[in-house]
Amino acid sequence: MSVSLWRSPLSRALHRNRSKPHTRYFQLATVQADGNPTNRTVVFRGFLGETDKIKIITDSRSQKFQQVRQNTWGEICWYFTETREQFRLAGEIILVDVDNSDVELQKARHLTWQELSDNARIQFAWAHPGKERANQEAFSPPLPDAIVPLANFCLLLLDPLKVDHLELRGEPQNRWFYLRDESGNWEKSPVNP
Amino acid sequence: MSVSLWRSPLSRALHRNRSKPHTRYFQLATVQADGNPTNRTVVFRGFLGETDKIKIITDSRSQKFQQVRQNTWGEICWYFTETREQFRLAGEIILVDVDNSDVELQKARHLTWQELSDNARIQFAWAHPGKERANQEAFSPPLPDAIVPLANFCLLLLDPLKVDHLELRGEPQNRWFYLRDESGNWEKSPVNP
Repeated sequence: MSVSLWRSPLSRALHRNRSKPHTRYFQLATVQADGNPTNRTVVFRGFLGETDKIKIITDSRSQKFQQVRQNTWGEICWYFTETREQFRLAGEIILVDVDNSDVELQKARHLTWQELSDNARIQFAWAHPGKERANQEAFSPPLPDAIVPLANFCLLLLDPLKVDHLELRGEPQNRWFYLRDESGNWEKSPVNP
Repeated sequence: MSVSLWRSPLSRALHRNRSKPHTRYFQLATVQADGNPTNRTVVFRGFLGETDKIKIITDSRSQKFQQVRQNTWGEICWYFTETREQFRLAGEIILVDVDNSDVELQKARHLTWQELSDNARIQFAWAHPGKERANQEAFSPPLPDAIVPLANFCLLLLDPLKVDHLELRGEPQNRWFYLRDESGNWEKSPVNP
C-alpha cells in the first residue's frame, strides 16, 4: 500500500513543530442540526493503524457527538505556528461508540482508551459537559478502569477525501490541493494561494 | 453602552498572549452549498468601532465569500496557546463587499483596506485563489491604490450571539457560556467543561 501523498508534508510539519505541545491540537468543524457550523479545538490522537483515518476522542454526551450522528462530514483546520503552514482535511467521520459492532473498530476504541493518561480518562467520569456547573465533588470521581472504556467514551475517525496545504512562508505562498479519487488514489495539484 | 461581558476575558487573553503573532489568528467555520462544514485560519482585524462585530477580510473570489452569501452563520474557534484557553464565537456574518450600499459599512470597508500593509493589499491583485497555479508574473502585479479598495476586497463582520469560553488551566477546567438575549443583553453562566 502506497503512502498517501499528503502524509509526507504533514509528518514533516509535525516533526518541525514538535517543540510546541499545541502542535497536536487542531480545530474540527461540524454542522449542527439547524445546518449551522460549529468549531472547537480537539487533540490529534494519531492515525488508525496503517490507514489515513485521523483519531479524535469525544464524550457521547458532547454536542459534536450528536452533530456527527446527523451529519458525518467534518473539516479539520490544522495550523502549525512555527513553520507557518496550514492543513485543511475534509472527509467523513466514522463514529465508534460503545454500540459499534465492528470488531476491529471496537478494538481500536479500547486501545485508544488504554493509551490515554489517567488525567484524560477521568474526564469521562465528570459531570455532563456543557450543563450547569456542578459542584466540586462531581469532578472528583474514582479513577475509571484503565482497560475497559466508560460507555460514553467515543472514538471519531476522520477519513480525509480532500486536503488543502498552505505554506505561508514563500513569495508568493505555496498551496496544494490533494484529492482522493474513487479508486483511493491521491492527486496533487499546485494552486494559487 | 455597557461593554459585553465576554469582551473583558477576551481582551485579557489577547494581552497575555500578545508575544505570539499567531495570537491574532483564529479558525472560522462556515457551511458550503452542500451543507457540509469548512474551516480555515483567518486573521483577526479588530472590532468594528465600538461594536462587538469581529472584522475579517476576504477576497470575493474565495470560497468563504460564496459560502457566507448562502449561509450567513459562522463560528470562530480561537485558541490561545500561552494561556491555554479557547473562545468559540458564533453568530451571523455581515458581508460588506463592493456593492454594499450601507454608507457606514462601506466606510468601514475602505478604512480596513487603508489599514492593511502593502503586502496584504497586493494579494488581492494576485491570480484567482484556489485555481490552477499561475506563473510567477501573476504574483507580481503593480501595487494597488492604498486608498480605494480593489473591487474583490471584502470585509466580513461576525456578530457574536453566543460565546463559549474554556480555560484548560484549572482543576477541573473552567468554562462559561455567554448568551445574548433579544434586547442585546448578555447572560453569563458557568458550565461543566
